[in-house]
Amino acid sequence: MKRTLGCCYYPEHWDEAVWADDARRMAETGLTWVRIGEFAWSRLEPAPGDLRFDWLDRAIDTLGRAGLKVVLGTPTATPPRWMIDRHPDMLAVDRDGRPRRFGSRRHYSFSHNGYLDECRRIVTLLADRYGRNPHVAAWQTDNEYGCHDTILSYSEIDRAAFQDWCAQRYQSIDALNRAWGNVFWSMEYSGFDQIDLPNLTVTEANPGHWLAFRRFASDQVGRFNRVQVDVIRARSDAPIAHNYMGRITDFDHFKVGDDLDIASWDSYPLGFLEDRVGADAAHQRAFARQGDPDFQAFHHDLYRAVGKGRWWVMEQQPGPVNWAPVNPAPLPGMVRLWSWEAFAHGAEAVCYFRWRQAPFAQEQMHSGLLRPDSEAAPALAEAAQVAQEIATAPRVAPVQAPVALIFDYDADWAWTIQPHGAGLSYFGLVFDWYRALRRAGLSVDILRPETRDFTGYRLVLVPGMMHMPDDLKTALANADAEILIGPRSAARDVEMAIPVPLPPAFPGLAVTVSRVESLRADCPLPIQGGGAVIGYREDLEGSAGAVLTLQDGSAIARRSGRVTYLGAWCDDPGHDRLVADLCARAGIETLALPEGVRVRDTANERFWFNHTAQTVDTPFGPLPPAGILRRPRA
Amino acid sequence: MKRTLGCCYYPEHWDEAVWADDARRMAETGLTWVRIGEFAWSRLEPAPGDLRFDWLDRAIDTLGRAGLKVVLGTPTATPPRWMIDRHPDMLAVDRDGRPRRFGSRRHYSFSHNGYLDECRRIVTLLADRYGRNPHVAAWQTDNEYGCHDTILSYSEIDRAAFQDWCAQRYQSIDALNRAWGNVFWSMEYSGFDQIDLPNLTVTEANPGHWLAFRRFASDQVGRFNRVQVDVIRARSDAPIAHNYMGRITDFDHFKVGDDLDIASWDSYPLGFLEDRVGADAAHQRAFARQGDPDFQAFHHDLYRAVGKGRWWVMEQQPGPVNWAPVNPAPLPGMVRLWSWEAFAHGAEAVCYFRWRQAPFAQEQMHSGLLRPDSEAAPALAEAAQVAQEIATAPRVAPVQAPVALIFDYDADWAWTIQPHGAGLSYFGLVFDWYRALRRAGLSVDILRPETRDFTGYRLVLVPGMMHMPDDLKTALANADAEILIGPRSAARDVEMAIPVPLPPAFPGLAVTVSRVESLRADCPLPIQGGGAVIGYREDLEGSAGAVLTLQDGSAIARRSGRVTYLGAWCDDPGHDRLVADLCARAGIETLALPEGVRVRDTANERFWFNHTAQTVDTPFGPLPPAGILRRPRA
Amino acid sequence: MKRTLGCCYYPEHWDEAVWADDARRMAETGLTWVRIGEFAWSRLEPAPGDLRFDWLDRAIDTLGRAGLKVVLGTPTATPPRWMIDRHPDMLAVDRDGRPRRFGSRRHYSFSHNGYLDECRRIVTLLADRYGRNPHVAAWQTDNEYGCHDTILSYSEIDRAAFQDWCAQRYQSIDALNRAWGNVFWSMEYSGFDQIDLPNLTVTEANPGHWLAFRRFASDQVGRFNRVQVDVIRARSDAPIAHNYMGRITDFDHFKVGDDLDIASWDSYPLGFLEDRVGADAAHQRAFARQGDPDFQAFHHDLYRAVGKGRWWVMEQQPGPVNWAPVNPAPLPGMVRLWSWEAFAHGAEAVCYFRWRQAPFAQEQMHSGLLRPDSEAAPALAEAAQVAQEIATAPRVAPVQAPVALIFDYDADWAWTIQPHGAGLSYFGLVFDWYRALRRAGLSVDILRPETRDFTGYRLVLVPGMMHMPDDLKTALANADAEILIGPRSAARDVEMAIPVPLPPAFPGLAVTVSRVESLRADCPLPIQGGGAVIGYREDLEGSAGAVLTLQDGSAIARRSGRVTYLGAWCDDPGHDRLVADLCARAGIETLALPEGVRVRDTANERFWFNHTAQTVDTPFGPLPPAGILRRPRA
Repeated sequence: MKRTLGCCYYPEHWDEAVWADDARRMAETGLTWVRIGEFAWSRLEPAPGDLRFDWLDRAIDTLGRAGLKVVLGTPTATPPRWMIDRHPDMLAVDRDGRPRRFGSRRHYSFSHNGYLDECRRIVTLLADRYGRNPHVAAWQTDNEYGCHDTILSYSEIDRAAFQDWCAQRYQSIDALNRAWGNVFWSMEYSGFDQIDLPNLTVTEANPGHWLAFRRFASDQVGRFNRVQVDVIRARSDAPIAHNYMGRITDFDHFKVGDDLDIASWDSYPLGFLEDRVGADAAHQRAFARQGDPDFQAFHHDLYRAVGKGRWWVMEQQPGPVNWAPVNPAPLPGMVRLWSWEAFAHGAEAVCYFRWRQAPFAQEQMHSGLLRPDSEAAPALAEAAQVAQEIATAPRVAPVQAPVALIFDYDADWAWTIQPHGAGLSYFGLVFDWYRALRRAGLSVDILRPETRDFTGYRLVLVPGMMHMPDDLKTALANADAEILIGPRSAARDVEMAIPVPLPPAFPGLAVTVSRVESLRADCPLPIQGGGAVIGYREDLEGSAGAVLTLQDGSAIARRSGRVTYLGAWCDDPGHDRLVADLCARAGIETLALPEGVRVRDTANERFWFNHTAQTVDTPFGPLPPAGILRRPRA
Repeated sequence: MKRTLGCCYYPEHWDEAVWADDARRMAETGLTWVRIGEFAWSRLEPAPGDLRFDWLDRAIDTLGRAGLKVVLGTPTATPPRWMIDRHPDMLAVDRDGRPRRFGSRRHYSFSHNGYLDECRRIVTLLADRYGRNPHVAAWQTDNEYGCHDTILSYSEIDRAAFQDWCAQRYQSIDALNRAWGNVFWSMEYSGFDQIDLPNLTVTEANPGHWLAFRRFASDQVGRFNRVQVDVIRARSDAPIAHNYMGRITDFDHFKVGDDLDIASWDSYPLGFLEDRVGADAAHQRAFARQGDPDFQAFHHDLYRAVGKGRWWVMEQQPGPVNWAPVNPAPLPGMVRLWSWEAFAHGAEAVCYFRWRQAPFAQEQMHSGLLRPDSEAAPALAEAAQVAQEIATAPRVAPVQAPVALIFDYDADWAWTIQPHGAGLSYFGLVFDWYRALRRAGLSVDILRPETRDFTGYRLVLVPGMMHMPDDLKTALANADAEILIGPRSAARDVEMAIPVPLPPAFPGLAVTVSRVESLRADCPLPIQGGGAVIGYREDLEGSAGAVLTLQDGSAIARRSGRVTYLGAWCDDPGHDRLVADLCARAGIETLALPEGVRVRDTANERFWFNHTAQTVDTPFGPLPPAGILRRPRA
Repeated sequence: MKRTLGCCYYPEHWDEAVWADDARRMAETGLTWVRIGEFAWSRLEPAPGDLRFDWLDRAIDTLGRAGLKVVLGTPTATPPRWMIDRHPDMLAVDRDGRPRRFGSRRHYSFSHNGYLDECRRIVTLLADRYGRNPHVAAWQTDNEYGCHDTILSYSEIDRAAFQDWCAQRYQSIDALNRAWGNVFWSMEYSGFDQIDLPNLTVTEANPGHWLAFRRFASDQVGRFNRVQVDVIRARSDAPIAHNYMGRITDFDHFKVGDDLDIASWDSYPLGFLEDRVGADAAHQRAFARQGDPDFQAFHHDLYRAVGKGRWWVMEQQPGPVNWAPVNPAPLPGMVRLWSWEAFAHGAEAVCYFRWRQAPFAQEQMHSGLLRPDSEAAPALAEAAQVAQEIATAPRVAPVQAPVALIFDYDADWAWTIQPHGAGLSYFGLVFDWYRALRRAGLSVDILRPETRDFTGYRLVLVPGMMHMPDDLKTALANADAEILIGPRSAARDVEMAIPVPLPPAFPGLAVTVSRVESLRADCPLPIQGGGAVIGYREDLEGSAGAVLTLQDGSAIARRSGRVTYLGAWCDDPGHDRLVADLCARAGIETLALPEGVRVRDTANERFWFNHTAQTVDTPFGPLPPAGILRRPRA
């Protein structure tokens, strides 16, 4: 498949007189795609029922005639002001009980049926009009579900919907009381209509209550998205995508992805380094102009799984952004590197956000490929270079990796509800493992938790998966691969209770977690031979052989056959030792990469990426800052 | 008196089939007491008036027949969900004005008369049924008054009750205006119904207003508790206790204690070290698995005073807990050490919380003596060891200490309202003094502020007692002991105004505090000869002789006869110097103890406790980590 | 003009019997002024319409007969409790949507017309009664507008007033939509009544929306103040002042000042160092007892401009205060130094707050010239010394400085709305520049943004002025002075949009800001030759010559003729280099001052002030801590 580039464009922001020139320059740059429309509701329908699609007709026509393919966004992330008059209770309510006001975006509750009907109506109008338009080659539903903490809403509308969801799931209130353990602290309900949302309680609410609420909230996103997908599918053959975000885990992307054709995400490496990677200050300083060397790759691999193989970068950072704590400019070459890294991980397309920097409103400090005065911003040349390189590049095709890592949104919620130690998170644990794999030069496939067929993988890792269904345990136990599970894997039943027999209760693995503890950050436990346990540790009973042992003699990893249980969160050296050990057992070759250098294997090539601001040595010679090296695979 | 052990048990959490076996194992472990019932309202009365006491009958019978004595808790800390329908305005309101929701515990305002009537009703039903039950050997009212910041509530119900309280206290609104100084900033009221609660004002509310509100809130706890006590007393001869907490000072425990027979508290050394001792990171790291060496002892001594000599540990941490920022496991031996330390300070009983770890709900990560699968957790063996040691131990009887330290909840509120410098608190000051006394090997009695007879004490300390009644000053001036007062002692009249003549206005003490200042943490003032003033310092005028002098020549402690006034918060070396000086004057022998080692004298013995993770030297040989040494007193 | 001293006094706080003695002692100390009345509404009108002015008559008479001149304050900062019953919706609402309660002060919204009528009424009564009183020699309106974050209020009253303000400013809703760029995110309105306040939106509100709201809020202060001024002017010839605060920039002081005769401010050097200077810990430690060496001077110069030359210190810190995080006592001599520093900057009068420390209410820990027991506090002697020095001093007259610095409140709001990097602020930038000028021994005039005549200045600095009107650019381009503008100067049009052509679009200056970025605090960019860029940096295109160049070769300051554009926030060494360079070009002599020493030139003298706690060397010999040196100007 040919890899393509694109950009995000807002014809409604600009004088119609410049549209044609913009389109011409996009095409000249080598762009294929142009995403439009996703915030334009107030221009499509300035008053209820007052439809103005003519400008959009002309915009699509102008772009299409320049040879560009349009990704048409549904405008449901930005309901116009009049919508609030029609549905005053559609506004989401934050955890503190405050309604969130009109005046920015994403000001709706996923549970509001009135607003959902309005979305169905506008999407139907769009799909009716453009579903067979030859220039509309893809769709995007809404925009960035979950951005600005918008999955969890605490309004009366949400409460009623949650009660219905509970009634559906548990069927009887006694079943719910048993499932959550409501006998504790006399929290028992006598009817579903008594159930409140779990915010604003005197002390923490029941973790079973929280987990149910988070599952409900995730399901509501799927319901909301599905309405739009169903409308579009009935009217268009073009593929449908949604643009996800980095490290937003408040809904199950795999389930939303099941209804879509393409997964895409919005990749802002510098902004994310500042506000969500979670790295320490030294790391942030070292990579301030390049972004974290693994964060983008992780999401590329995650969304490749969410998209069942088909995925894009829908928004690629082209320069300084406006929203992070600090907003530096990228190192020259990084826009090219980010683009190629996405292709190496299998992206079909990379679209830059945005074509021209807007001089007004919230994102006026967000760079584009053009400056506000329409001159070229620095990224334009890098985009053009990538476009030329694509044109001459051999085929870049993804291939199954030797290593698989399961990512489970449900587990992330459980850890968030009950981290047990300050700062511990599921995402952090999985990402620590992913980083260790990448430091060893490995390409990784991320798998959804429903995976039962592990054919082709030589190593499968399942850290921190709080609830493991029995058939997953069986499938892993029977897989022809080395398996690593833990810490906290299988630590809870499906309703967040501790199972008896105690975890992990894994077939053929003689390990029982007899006690757990969290640790102060300044109290690491050294491991014999190197590395340390940080943050979290379990006592492991059982006859399985010790793999890693603390200096006090207690085993923190034990193994029976090809299944290893790790009862600890390790530091990087600890994880590196385990990766080396597991890969040696699995017959997987590893590399010793310089700091900040990463490799990624496609079907035919190995890509080397230098994420540092210094020239580094590789087996094939020096690689400059932001440099890319492509070598045929042996 | 024979010291005893016990545990906390929730028969309603477990299949009735296991009750008998649980009871048998408790007795075999050597436990005497089992506390039950304190969160069981939804099982005793699942719907209004639908009473189900049969299961509790059987539980008490099963436990009693195994030889255990029952402490029966009233279930009023966890009103069931239907209670909120009956009394929607019973929910407490937080300082930000948000009602606190059902879904955890302690979701009531102490001022709600409707809920108070419900409490009277359920306690009456319990006392009628079990008041003469031979197995019910003690009672506990409610659970942990003040936990989760539940003393101060800001609802309309609370406001009305506060207005009534003010009317009772001040009789006329003019008197209130004068008492609080409401002429300042035109804050004068013309009627009691105009008085609002002191939260959410534009800038800080009047400290007189705050102090009145805090006194009111404390009184409401006493009123609430007294209703239950009166009901039980009329129907049972068993002693009545309440289980207090560590460093919760929002109500006057002495006044609540006056209505009870036994004080008890819930001791969680590792959780408290993390979330309320206030120690620096190095100290927290050193004692992460042992807890602070003085925090438990302080509360033992405090609650011995609150209980007028009779006190228990009602809940003793047995392993990792769930609620602290991080939750490590105790060093082996510490559960035994904590138990014996309580006995050395005079505890009648130590009950472990809880018998078996619950697999569900908020405390599923809270260890018990048993694991969720009913196997023994590590603490069970330590509890059994203590039980055996008790059986063979000579009598452990408390004895009056040579040193007394006054603790005044009212002063704590005044400091909280007006710390004058960030981070300064009354509890912190008193605890710093207590630590200094303990470092010198001293046993300490804590006295309530109403104490007027100091017979038998050779040294009495009254730091930070913002308001000192005249008769207390007189009693101290006439006591046959060295007296230390200050800083801030007697700095306010009973309504929080600065008295004229200026403080301390102490009989026979020629000292006047002419000015006060607070200090940055990085600006200590060195004391001639060693130590430093930190955080707070007063200028002392008067002819009393200088005891401690700053390097700039100004006296920060002055003495007339046997009364010393200290006008500063000192660092540890400064306090150590004063302790040495005062003990030398009082003829009290001191020790030079290794770091983390503490001693406690009973009538016949001196106990040595090693709170460190290292073996330490004592005059009687090496003491291992968590080790205990008992030596006959000379 | 003779410089004078005064104090703040609250006759309503004290027994009438002591008034005469207080007045006598004030006069004996050498005080001229006594400010009274500004919080006394509940004593002037204890119930609606129940007027009690007799005590105030007697107080003014007593003070006047002692030879003191009265500054009479209007009591509108403290509406009595009954006012809330009459106008329940007059209470301001905070950004979180919570009404701010009665119980402290400043509990009103500037937009409430009912309360404004009440203010007009009470001020009319006061002006009618005292407008021609010979002892009432000046007036003060209200008290400390903006203190306790009281400019921005978010009530329904404010919302309606803001809608009216928008309708006036924009005339049509389409004009508003265009001005703010509301097409972005479908934020368009169809009528003014749809406009909400910009708080509580899901993510940040439109910066155009915020800027309009801030301008509205500032205008409301002017409207509120003008009502009082109009009433007083019609009834009195005495000058009218308001007492501003340090670093409160939420309203345009120049515009409020236009309606007043005198600017005054409340100077609390030690409290401000702790809570608003923004200095690092080492600096705060070094100046803990002296205050920042430039913060007071900056406000002296600022308010000299606000007062069009006439300005006072209405409240001068005399000892420890009550409201800062920590509250140390001043170094002996600092009260004198602060007083003289104000005179050197042109103050007509310095009034100490307060005469006697109040024993009650919120400020009971705020020092006065007298202690609560009426004994002299340490500051009394320093005040008396200053009074004597004034009496014998030659004339202290201000003179135009060689350097001017424009301060623009509107720019401060724009930066606050959009700092672009965490911690960046307009005030911080301007103050960094002011500090650099002062380190070079320069006296500085601060100019309002409407200034167009720069005659007499040899150097004019305009850093960070986000919007620069075209005629200001022209005036600067034509001025006979060196000009420095940037960073961010002229970066926005009047409605907060990025202008095209890109900034700064300054006549004759061949510089274009092509891109901007913010920087992590730990990522400074070294400048060739010394100094570094911190926090913020712009890419500068154009043919203007490079003045400062980064080590990577890019220019961060460029110059055409006498106009320099600086595209960066520099550290102190960087600013020092620019000051040296600009002064050399402008023919301004600079000094190399010891750390913490500052000079200030009057018409005839140069004052040297030692703000350190150590003796320092000067060209005229050693200067002790808190020392002042006066030398005739050459």
